[in-house]
Amino acid sequence: MHYGGDYNPEQWPEDIWPEDVARMREAGVTMVSLGIFAWSKLQPAEGEFDFGWLDRIIDLLHEGGIAVDLATATASPPPWATSTYPEMLPQDENGSVYWPGSRQQFAPSSPGYRRLAGELVSRLVERYHEHPAVVMWHVNNEYGCHLNADYSDAARDAFRVWLADKYGTVDALNEAWGTAFWSQLYGSFAEIFPPRKAPYSHNPAQLLDFHRFTSDALFECYLMEKRIIRAAGATQPITTNFMGAFKPADYWRWAAEMDVITDDCYPDPNDPQSFRAGAFQRDLMRSLKPGVPWLLMEQSSNALSWRPTNAPKSPGQMRALSMQAIARGADGILFFQWRQSRSGSEKFHSAMLPHAGTRTRTWREIVALGDELAGLPALPASSQEARVAIVLDWENWWALENPDHPVVLDYLSLVQNWHFALHQQNVQVDFVRASADLSGYQLVIAPQLYLLRADGAAGLTAFVEGGGHLLVTAFSDLVDEDERFRPEGYLTQLGPLLGIWLEDFGALVAPGAAGAGQSTAPLGSPLGSVTGTFLAEEIHPIEAVVLGEFTAGRLDGRPAFTRNDVGAGRAYYLATIPDAAGAVTITAHLLAEAGIEPVLPGLPITVEAARRGDVVTVINHGDTPVDLVLPGTDLQRDAPAGAVTLAPFDVRLLRLP
Amino acid sequence: MHYGGDYNPEQWPEDIWPEDVARMREAGVTMVSLGIFAWSKLQPAEGEFDFGWLDRIIDLLHEGGIAVDLATATASPPPWATSTYPEMLPQDENGSVYWPGSRQQFAPSSPGYRRLAGELVSRLVERYHEHPAVVMWHVNNEYGCHLNADYSDAARDAFRVWLADKYGTVDALNEAWGTAFWSQLYGSFAEIFPPRKAPYSHNPAQLLDFHRFTSDALFECYLMEKRIIRAAGATQPITTNFMGAFKPADYWRWAAEMDVITDDCYPDPNDPQSFRAGAFQRDLMRSLKPGVPWLLMEQSSNALSWRPTNAPKSPGQMRALSMQAIARGADGILFFQWRQSRSGSEKFHSAMLPHAGTRTRTWREIVALGDELAGLPALPASSQEARVAIVLDWENWWALENPDHPVVLDYLSLVQNWHFALHQQNVQVDFVRASADLSGYQLVIAPQLYLLRADGAAGLTAFVEGGGHLLVTAFSDLVDEDERFRPEGYLTQLGPLLGIWLEDFGALVAPGAAGAGQSTAPLGSPLGSVTGTFLAEEIHPIEAVVLGEFTAGRLDGRPAFTRNDVGAGRAYYLATIPDAAGAVTITAHLLAEAGIEPVLPGLPITVEAARRGDVVTVINHGDTPVDLVLPGTDLQRDAPAGAVTLAPFDVRLLRLP
Amino acid sequence: MHYGGDYNPEQWPEDIWPEDVARMREAGVTMVSLGIFAWSKLQPAEGEFDFGWLDRIIDLLHEGGIAVDLATATASPPPWATSTYPEMLPQDENGSVYWPGSRQQFAPSSPGYRRLAGELVSRLVERYHEHPAVVMWHVNNEYGCHLNADYSDAARDAFRVWLADKYGTVDALNEAWGTAFWSQLYGSFAEIFPPRKAPYSHNPAQLLDFHRFTSDALFECYLMEKRIIRAAGATQPITTNFMGAFKPADYWRWAAEMDVITDDCYPDPNDPQSFRAGAFQRDLMRSLKPGVPWLLMEQSSNALSWRPTNAPKSPGQMRALSMQAIARGADGILFFQWRQSRSGSEKFHSAMLPHAGTRTRTWREIVALGDELAGLPALPASSQEARVAIVLDWENWWALENPDHPVVLDYLSLVQNWHFALHQQNVQVDFVRASADLSGYQLVIAPQLYLLRADGAAGLTAFVEGGGHLLVTAFSDLVDEDERFRPEGYLTQLGPLLGIWLEDFGALVAPGAAGAGQSTAPLGSPLGSVTGTFLAEEIHPIEAVVLGEFTAGRLDGRPAFTRNDVGAGRAYYLATIPDAAGAVTITAHLLAEAGIEPVLPGLPITVEAARRGDVVTVINHGDTPVDLVLPGTDLQRDAPAGAVTLAPFDVRLLRLP
Repeated sequence: MHYGGDYNPEQWPEDIWPEDVARMREAGVTMVSLGIFAWSKLQPAEGEFDFGWLDRIIDLLHEGGIAVDLATATASPPPWATSTYPEMLPQDENGSVYWPGSRQQFAPSSPGYRRLAGELVSRLVERYHEHPAVVMWHVNNEYGCHLNADYSDAARDAFRVWLADKYGTVDALNEAWGTAFWSQLYGSFAEIFPPRKAPYSHNPAQLLDFHRFTSDALFECYLMEKRIIRAAGATQPITTNFMGAFKPADYWRWAAEMDVITDDCYPDPNDPQSFRAGAFQRDLMRSLKPGVPWLLMEQSSNALSWRPTNAPKSPGQMRALSMQAIARGADGILFFQWRQSRSGSEKFHSAMLPHAGTRTRTWREIVALGDELAGLPALPASSQEARVAIVLDWENWWALENPDHPVVLDYLSLVQNWHFALHQQNVQVDFVRASADLSGYQLVIAPQLYLLRADGAAGLTAFVEGGGHLLVTAFSDLVDEDERFRPEGYLTQLGPLLGIWLEDFGALVAPGAAGAGQSTAPLGSPLGSVTGTFLAEEIHPIEAVVLGEFTAGRLDGRPAFTRNDVGAGRAYYLATIPDAAGAVTITAHLLAEAGIEPVLPGLPITVEAARRGDVVTVINHGDTPVDLVLPGTDLQRDAPAGAVTLAPFDVRLLRLP
Repeated sequence: MHYGGDYNPEQWPEDIWPEDVARMREAGVTMVSLGIFAWSKLQPAEGEFDFGWLDRIIDLLHEGGIAVDLATATASPPPWATSTYPEMLPQDENGSVYWPGSRQQFAPSSPGYRRLAGELVSRLVERYHEHPAVVMWHVNNEYGCHLNADYSDAARDAFRVWLADKYGTVDALNEAWGTAFWSQLYGSFAEIFPPRKAPYSHNPAQLLDFHRFTSDALFECYLMEKRIIRAAGATQPITTNFMGAFKPADYWRWAAEMDVITDDCYPDPNDPQSFRAGAFQRDLMRSLKPGVPWLLMEQSSNALSWRPTNAPKSPGQMRALSMQAIARGADGILFFQWRQSRSGSEKFHSAMLPHAGTRTRTWREIVALGDELAGLPALPASSQEARVAIVLDWENWWALENPDHPVVLDYLSLVQNWHFALHQQNVQVDFVRASADLSGYQLVIAPQLYLLRADGAAGLTAFVEGGGHLLVTAFSDLVDEDERFRPEGYLTQLGPLLGIWLEDFGALVAPGAAGAGQSTAPLGSPLGSVTGTFLAEEIHPIEAVVLGEFTAGRLDGRPAFTRNDVGAGRAYYLATIPDAAGAVTITAHLLAEAGIEPVLPGLPITVEAARRGDVVTVINHGDTPVDLVLPGTDLQRDAPAGAVTLAPFDVRLLRLP
Repeated sequence: MHYGGDYNPEQWPEDIWPEDVARMREAGVTMVSLGIFAWSKLQPAEGEFDFGWLDRIIDLLHEGGIAVDLATATASPPPWATSTYPEMLPQDENGSVYWPGSRQQFAPSSPGYRRLAGELVSRLVERYHEHPAVVMWHVNNEYGCHLNADYSDAARDAFRVWLADKYGTVDALNEAWGTAFWSQLYGSFAEIFPPRKAPYSHNPAQLLDFHRFTSDALFECYLMEKRIIRAAGATQPITTNFMGAFKPADYWRWAAEMDVITDDCYPDPNDPQSFRAGAFQRDLMRSLKPGVPWLLMEQSSNALSWRPTNAPKSPGQMRALSMQAIARGADGILFFQWRQSRSGSEKFHSAMLPHAGTRTRTWREIVALGDELAGLPALPASSQEARVAIVLDWENWWALENPDHPVVLDYLSLVQNWHFALHQQNVQVDFVRASADLSGYQLVIAPQLYLLRADGAAGLTAFVEGGGHLLVTAFSDLVDEDERFRPEGYLTQLGPLLGIWLEDFGALVAPGAAGAGQSTAPLGSPLGSVTGTFLAEEIHPIEAVVLGEFTAGRLDGRPAFTRNDVGAGRAYYLATIPDAAGAVTITAHLLAEAGIEPVLPGLPITVEAARRGDVVTVINHGDTPVDLVLPGTDLQRDAPAGAVTLAPFDVRLLRLP
């Protein structure tokens, strides 16, 4: 179990470093991430490197028994670099340059950036790859975090190359993009631009490919650094820190090239439901690389500095969220950052060692958590505990949120709605791609699979045919990988499985939006009443059984929820999008039908339970104590758990028989 | 009666075309608009044209008995054009380029664009002007729709030329624009820019002239194409499709150069009042070219794709809105588009032939409407049935919405407020310019004629002197055509007619705006109480009789509504802007005083009646049936109308004796 | 007592000028500000000047007995200037140019602008400095009003020079800015940019220095003109018009170089509390140059033209606000502008002589006020009547509103909250810097002194040690002048004085903001209950006495309000920010403890009283009459004041015994 945080010794005079190491030992720190923003310190000018200070601090840490996750330091190029090579600077869709003075001021496609970054990584890995303190390589930092897309000429040139690689001929691109529409037929790849500001809507296939290109351009940067590290003979695991479900980068693709998944996670203490968002993020990280424990690479010890209101964490809340990560597969808890900065944009961001010093609650909690983690036995690696999976797919995310749809949807919130419903019932969930082997699951929920490739449709079909229960929801299986409607209508791939056909979408006024028009579509069924939102589709059962009908509005009396039995398997279709309560009602029904049990039954609404092998972690995220009777052995007290009063933010680890 | 829609065969393989024609015949299609976005297909490279496919589809349509409204295809230049001539690309006021990838990416003033567009039109008209299928020319498409103004260097150069043409000398411009204010005296036309981003408010006369220039720049494009078509010997009517009351283009000027008015109209099904907006738009189209039936060039068969929520039309609603257009002077019903696209930005836009196929309600309604229209007898051309006219003036629109006024006003909504009030009372209304011959009307309403030229003032004066009843409303007759206050105060032209003088404007906090301050100005009068908004002017009667006074607020007890009799004529002044109910109260009074009757009396609020010669059309736009007793003969049933129950969205055509 | 306004004769034909002068005499005008926007008229082309018209109007005014405040006319360069030298044009942070067509289209750092402006000023002062009509020089106009910051290349170059001047070496800058954070270490000043658009937050020290630079760049323009005027031998007082508490320019620095403070003030008549904002602004102007009467250089006679709603002033309100200025130290009342414009962006802005002419209320009130002012006896110059001072500091303002803080604060509103509380109690208040000699005050309130220099801390400490009562409030004494936390925690300078230490900030959800989380922090104490907002800090008393505790929320029961006695002095700390009512509660307590009396006791809430030497002015800003018993002699009636009914917006001047 790793414990530690980002360590930026370059912000401090060297005479503070020994105190840092001593305090780290006091706090139980085992590993720090070093040098993430040190490029301008490591390379003060082109061709000029200064590794002396880094040598000294790595040695000092090593002497103190602190391992190093060594950063490649490429996330923020030095001022000299962008002054010398201004073509490195990214641009927005209006042609405005992103200037230096902050961080991440590099165009990922820029040849100049890649050359300079590669050179730095080569020097670093050459010098440190055999240093015994270095146990991991930390490539760059939060790729794409602030700069979600680049529209510069560097991006333009690289996008053209990327498209030529993908399509071979411009005719193939014209066909895929449907450029006959609006007179967009291209004569050559050199006529194509990123989707910069235009008079009106962009070609949606162009937008979709630009999302793919943007993810790939960042990914190429990562792969370049990884190749350099490996080429130099380094054997440590290589990672780059993720940011949960982050739209610009398709983490499924990235995960395959990561030795260990690491994640930055900052739930808002003001939001009483943010522990569910935390659980969502951690379940996703675990799912990205099944069987390999991930690391919580960044969290905060207390308040942040970048929200409009940066509330403090409650006493115990930092520990509770840390244990949530461990419960859901993490083998390390790290923070941004070790010592709170005196200067710069994040000086109000809390740290392990606060600016107010060691007489603070924050420091006491940091020390206590380090102590607790050190006392934990080794936890089993996660195997596939979940019987339920939710499909989450990046290219569908990009396509679904393209403009000019019947209604504006936010894919992440729709996926989370299902996760939160299951989480509230303490049912363990994995995330999957539709094309994955789903045979280990009993229930798969596929929210808004608007873009569904043939392999995804095949995966879902095989799952049902193998006896699985599948829920498909409104606005699914509409377009192919080029954002084209498939010929012959909608639901052309899943329709036979679902036993229905789809006539129209029935857009509703979005919840909370102003203006007249139908905004909800209630549906009734034996399983209870549910409020539908966003869409109330006009569907026609062919072989499916109608489980529920719309009970008001335009489609009053028309089918809303259907089931089609395929051997032992079942294919459900929900012709709308339920609100939060509706998702609970529907999943409760599906879980019961599929015979799926929660991790622990009967827990209060603020209490979560997660399973990791034979260990179940129970956490009270509420602000009042709860009385529980818990099974198994209390792992930390080495005694039967039984009846306990769980204080706010308190935790129990249980080993089940 | 034309029936059909935009047809874009270039989006489909040729083997689908015969099916298209067969389905068109099934649907009763008589005419399609062809090639609107086909430039890149017609001209794959500079100097290279491909008309073969267009030959084939026109012949195929002709064989099928389908006429062609042939587009000039200039609305979306091909990628090669803007790559070769980047100066064709427009820019926004911040200097950001509008790049290709959407549509309408051309600077209307660009010499390069005009040259290329002219060349294409020449080729098209030369090739097809004698083809028997071609019955109309469709110039460009929705001029200015997405690009309301262009601030590029092409626009800058053309604006300077336009100004030099208008003013002759820069001294004349300095005088007209009042450039002595804020040190803006120009030494030459070459020092003048479009109103690009500036530190603070622009000179309002510059803004006004830039609106005029923008409308003219688009109009010049239209005229250029028209001249080319006529010069080649084509004799078919020429049109370009309007978009209702569209601020950037002064359609009064354009209409004079159109052989037939055509309009695109997309009421929002979510808005239960959108049928009034539809009626408003159709009355405007009819008024633009009195006596010549217009065409509904684009509407949707069902849902759209460009609103935040694109609700479906209710069953029957598409027919009801089609009949509304016919009732108000249209001789054709066309759709965007014939076959729903598989790709591109508008694939979710409904079409005559939906992507879900012929088993849909949409298709059934399209076929039924085609059948119904084919069965209609020829309808009389509209003559001037209306006794009431509303003044709508583009240059007043532009001037009224300039910045730095006492309060922010939305001209279109203010004009519509009066139209809706009359429409709700089923009174037939025309739109006019103040300078027109108004002698055919009994009542003229002139909302917020802030900029009133001498000829407009003369027109209104002559109307009253001829016995007409005129309502002038707050914030009228303030500036001349150069946005200058006229010397000697306000209402300097109409004051004598109205018998009042105006001291001050009395801005109110806008309805719905936050913050303290008086937001409404109630006024009472024998005709009822009315809520005034936006302005509560301080007026002084000279000869006028006070009909109503403000009953609260700053002007409690002061005159609010006056009447001045001028021979048999009457000149009313309303010193505020009524809300919707207030407009009904006031118009009811004015109609009664003028002895004007509705088309049909006593109709429920959701039912409209419109007159076209001796034919009256009655439509129920509500979602519940209504019982009516109707006069005359049911035109479609060839029987006395009498007592009927009109279902939601059902229609009756009555021939009156 | 000056009376008059901006006079722009260049907007009118010369034959109107004699009428202007006659009307001025009728209105009692004594001085006009001439030529503020006349550059393009004075210099029609480079090297070509036309002073003839200015000669004529100055002579005409002089003959009429009207003095001239002669403008240097540099606030709006002529079109030829920016056409010839486009590098004069400023740019925004996105690189968009601010084009001509409005006003203030100059980059303050532009060498070209400075050269041309200097040349114009030289000519003007040479020609007119001995003219007997010229009694004052009006440099430029509202420096920085619309263009709060410039990011152009001219600004870039000047910023680098400014930084080099300040820091000497780039290493010193790196240390001060903390550029080791996020890899921002600069190798030379030539690598530094203004804080243009960047991917994420800018370095806060860079932002702070850019605020300083921006203020200084404008100030340099002022100083350049002042030097030219003095060098030519002119002896009249020199001013430039301020705009109240204006964030971009540090008026404390400017005031030292002004011979007389002049101010533009436009309270919103829609806001019933705007008379307090007026009082705030006037108290600030008086405080900027103690003992020297200031001038109200611009106000409006009636409605404005630049707010969304420009409501008229109520009858008498213009006089009431004028008398408020005099009561608070002004020796002149001037207006923008003399005669309402016929053209341009401000033609709807009211003027002394309205466009509707002399039969208007506005004109009658202007004439009456001129008459009243002429009848006033000379008023005593303000000495330091106030016993209470509020600290207002520009560099703290800039730093406090930097991004990435625990919560978003608006410094001006927080300072005003305390002023309004004291104003409502009719307690006279000055504004001060913390480093000033505070020994003349009994109570000093220091709202949110986030950035507190050593000299400021010393000033406040000396004040308390000298027996003063000091209130320090949440979020104070955190950073040094480089936006760095001071070593060893928070409140490192004032902590010993206050007898507390600060652990954490406890950000609250801002009042009115959406979303979950604690938004208020109630505190209770013997002096009453108070609602805390924005922050609820975690403080620890060392020697301080706890006067109040938080009574709910995260810090329930923890100290919220403390007092530390230091000899006869007292140092209070409030660990939150009170709402409006809370500020009244707390100041009432502090005033009572310090033994400070109001100017007059027991006045109704809408009535204010201000003291100037032995004269007290009483004004009713409410819309209902109030009955008062007033002390002293009614200065205008020359009789004992006694019992009076003060009508809405009526005024009494009392000479106290």
